[in-house]
Amino acid sequence: MVEPTPAAHTDAPPPHAPARHGTHLVRSDWVIVGLALAFMAVAGVTHYLGGGAVLAFVSAAAAVALLAALVGRSVEQLGDRFGPGATGVLQSALGNLPELFISLFALKAGLVAVVQAALIGSILANLLLVLGLCFVVGGLKHGTQSLDSARARGITVMLLVSVAAMVMPSVAHLIHAPAAEHETTLSVIASVFLLLLFVLTLRASLRRGDDPGRPGGPDEAEPPRWKLPFAVGMLAASAAAAAFVSDWFVTALTPAMDAIGISQAFAGLVVVAIAGNAIENVVGVQLAAKNRSEYAFAVVINSPLQIALVLAPLLVILSAVLGFASLTLVFSPLLVVSVAIAVLLSAFITFDGKSTWIEGAGLLALYGVIAATFWWG
Amino acid sequence: MVEPTPAAHTDAPPPHAPARHGTHLVRSDWVIVGLALAFMAVAGVTHYLGGGAVLAFVSAAAAVALLAALVGRSVEQLGDRFGPGATGVLQSALGNLPELFISLFALKAGLVAVVQAALIGSILANLLLVLGLCFVVGGLKHGTQSLDSARARGITVMLLVSVAAMVMPSVAHLIHAPAAEHETTLSVIASVFLLLLFVLTLRASLRRGDDPGRPGGPDEAEPPRWKLPFAVGMLAASAAAAAFVSDWFVTALTPAMDAIGISQAFAGLVVVAIAGNAIENVVGVQLAAKNRSEYAFAVVINSPLQIALVLAPLLVILSAVLGFASLTLVFSPLLVVSVAIAVLLSAFITFDGKSTWIEGAGLLALYGVIAATFWWG
Amino acid sequence: MVEPTPAAHTDAPPPHAPARHGTHLVRSDWVIVGLALAFMAVAGVTHYLGGGAVLAFVSAAAAVALLAALVGRSVEQLGDRFGPGATGVLQSALGNLPELFISLFALKAGLVAVVQAALIGSILANLLLVLGLCFVVGGLKHGTQSLDSARARGITVMLLVSVAAMVMPSVAHLIHAPAAEHETTLSVIASVFLLLLFVLTLRASLRRGDDPGRPGGPDEAEPPRWKLPFAVGMLAASAAAAAFVSDWFVTALTPAMDAIGISQAFAGLVVVAIAGNAIENVVGVQLAAKNRSEYAFAVVINSPLQIALVLAPLLVILSAVLGFASLTLVFSPLLVVSVAIAVLLSAFITFDGKSTWIEGAGLLALYGVIAATFWWG
Repeated sequence: MVEPTPAAHTDAPPPHAPARHGTHLVRSDWVIVGLALAFMAVAGVTHYLGGGAVLAFVSAAAAVALLAALVGRSVEQLGDRFGPGATGVLQSALGNLPELFISLFALKAGLVAVVQAALIGSILANLLLVLGLCFVVGGLKHGTQSLDSARARGITVMLLVSVAAMVMPSVAHLIHAPAAEHETTLSVIASVFLLLLFVLTLRASLRRGDDPGRPGGPDEAEPPRWKLPFAVGMLAASAAAAAFVSDWFVTALTPAMDAIGISQAFAGLVVVAIAGNAIENVVGVQLAAKNRSEYAFAVVINSPLQIALVLAPLLVILSAVLGFASLTLVFSPLLVVSVAIAVLLSAFITFDGKSTWIEGAGLLALYGVIAATFWWG
Repeated sequence: MVEPTPAAHTDAPPPHAPARHGTHLVRSDWVIVGLALAFMAVAGVTHYLGGGAVLAFVSAAAAVALLAALVGRSVEQLGDRFGPGATGVLQSALGNLPELFISLFALKAGLVAVVQAALIGSILANLLLVLGLCFVVGGLKHGTQSLDSARARGITVMLLVSVAAMVMPSVAHLIHAPAAEHETTLSVIASVFLLLLFVLTLRASLRRGDDPGRPGGPDEAEPPRWKLPFAVGMLAASAAAAAFVSDWFVTALTPAMDAIGISQAFAGLVVVAIAGNAIENVVGVQLAAKNRSEYAFAVVINSPLQIALVLAPLLVILSAVLGFASLTLVFSPLLVVSVAIAVLLSAFITFDGKSTWIEGAGLLALYGVIAATFWWG
Repeated sequence: MVEPTPAAHTDAPPPHAPARHGTHLVRSDWVIVGLALAFMAVAGVTHYLGGGAVLAFVSAAAAVALLAALVGRSVEQLGDRFGPGATGVLQSALGNLPELFISLFALKAGLVAVVQAALIGSILANLLLVLGLCFVVGGLKHGTQSLDSARARGITVMLLVSVAAMVMPSVAHLIHAPAAEHETTLSVIASVFLLLLFVLTLRASLRRGDDPGRPGGPDEAEPPRWKLPFAVGMLAASAAAAAFVSDWFVTALTPAMDAIGISQAFAGLVVVAIAGNAIENVVGVQLAAKNRSEYAFAVVINSPLQIALVLAPLLVILSAVLGFASLTLVFSPLLVVSVAIAVLLSAFITFDGKSTWIEGAGLLALYGVIAATFWWG
């Protein structure tokens, strides 16, 4: 029973509304902390003492997802003090921390194919699975919902640009272009361009932060409930814990997949991608259920943008710097085609500006067909 | 001289307007029945007694097209009694009957490549040839026409989703993904997802049927002219005749193509696709000529959606169940690229919301280039 | 210090405003003529007497760019007398003259790969580099700019159609379709369709010319400053000079690229493409800087349309007729993928209807990654 994270609270503040700057933990905070500690305990025991690959994996996955939620919550409590622009910067920088840890441990363990599949899988999970669920839940409860906003179209254009830049090394490889022999160099070049672009988008969102009329601005955020030192402490603790548990998660991954009998590609594309985004995704669906479809949509399509713009290029550069298994942007062709389809489709949906439950069902069906294609991966 | 089918009648009811529920055949009904019988006679004689492959083929093609029109007309006369929602369901379920018969006989005859080319060819013919003709005819007569409607954008999004799901097995095959070894299983999985989605769209259109404000609703339909038993009888008779003539059509296809000297791929993509959709297409163009461009557009782009959502997956499953030549969703790469181009292009045209005759000319030119590419197929 | 060409003058007419039909050369005319003569002199000396491959190339490139500007200016001074429709026709027909000369000399020299890369490179340079610069400059100076106009969306749809038709022979080749054996025939067929479509677009723009409400119509043009015989003479002289200098440019190209150490593909895609469009591009960016973003956008995306619709097909047919190195529309796969990405992306940007500087930065980053991919071409 996962409670909503703060983002979903805004239009239904708890009756015991917090005094500003008091360190006030609402019930959902306690539930997440408690569950995270419980699953960490199980995951730690199975990691160090044994208890079955599948149990170790499931408990670590649950713990990672809960710690990711806690990191997100701490960042939000932290950031509001610096205005909405700075919050955006911090959320972008820190929100992907748990996925970054998982990917780094997986690269250290040599699981390059899993990391690549998980990067693309996170994009697919957001654009097809989560968006599909949002549309089905929102559409059945509220009929046709509106997604139309200049902000969503802006995010979509940046998503198209970033994904296009991200897959160019794969394209060069796939068609045996001369550049394919320099795939590591080309991946690093593309990563540097993407990270530069990310730095500029931070500047752009800092600028936008000055604009009170910005959607997602003051009206949509609640005042922080935690004192600054508490928020910083919680962030540090949950991030540190996420780093530990990510290691256990990756250690448990291969034996668990072998036990269940699924391929590395499928494990990365579906299992890791969903585990790494679970809480975020629940929030998106909850917002759609509350008929806050425009905000839900912006949240859900912003996540794949962060993956293409920051997480993937950062991992390419870190894997080279830290001497882990070399991660390039040369994804398997099936990953490239799948992400191209998902990104184009979501662009048309953004530009349509309306969503219906049947469109949601269509996105879920497409996700099912793509996942099935990776089953034999 | 083919008369418009009822859909095209609505804004110009004949002066001898029918009494509701009287079995009233207007002149265009008689013309279609007469021509259908005449071409059936010629096709039957050439089928059983001989008379040249080309004559056999042309007469069977004409008879199939006319019987398809008669099936469509019967369904329309039948369905209005159950409200516009149920009409949509019936039209979706029965409107593709003649194409289904042709495809089944072709699969029985082992012409898998022809059936695959005809499925994609029907989509291309609608999205490029027919849409191009609509835009040219409508644009030259009425200037820039409007296509903008939420309904058209909704159909387009579903078309993008369905075509993406339909071509995933081809993508896996083309790039030698591990899933390519399981192409039949993967095709069946994709087909099941598509048919599930089709069932849900029927529910969605039944729901929409309750909404009187729906475009294509009451205002656009004329009251039925035929008594219910007559409509049922006409439907049964024309469907049965279509089944017979489809067999003759398929039998005549290979010798006729050999006589004229065109490849199987071109025959499927162009000849079969156009024969199977001829009357529908005439209706679309007539609506555009009458400046009913929004309705014309919705009719023309709904047809490819039915192919991807029902006809193709149903044929995959039927060919497996009935033990015919195994049809998979592994289309040739040229078919996949062509359908991707056509679907993306039509999506942008839908979202533009305007059509001009020069855009129509562009679509016709693109159809010409694609058809030429298949000439050596 | 290149002065704006007349298109950029319109909202800031020089104080010494010309008497209609007097041959009045403004300062910017003199500057262009002077610089063109200077660079021609340097290019001629290095061509006939030697002086280093790089100097020969750079001076010829500068001279070609300036002569292209002069051809454009002459066409504009010429065309206004026949109404805006006829101006459009003349500009379309004559505006690509310098690029046509360069390409023909390059084909004569057997540099087929350079010509193909330059054709696609011009499209990429316009849709990514120039548009990116426009968005960055316009966005930083004026905030979010509007691009929304029915005309821009119409150009985009035609661009999608033309590029799709243009790349079909490449697709057939890439996937080893039977048509790949007939690639020259198929390229000629596609070229004929494209040129037919071009002739029709001329008719469409002549028609539109009658419409005084057309954007880009009377309000946006200034009255001609040159007498007709002077304009004709300047056009003839600058076109003839452009033909000469194009020869020198092509002769200097291979040694200069060898001296600097860059590949034919990169030279064509980046260097030739930018040299051939330099002045046009400066005009687009100047318009964006003046917050005339809608006009700037229409100018920038019209240029790639002319390449796909006229220049590429004309070169295919001329190379066959004149017996030069055979140019087909079979582009390298990397060129095809790059142009597909650029065209789809610019279509979404057109349909978004807004531009921001961060989107511009994204386009520049994508251009950088694509150019890097061609570095090892």
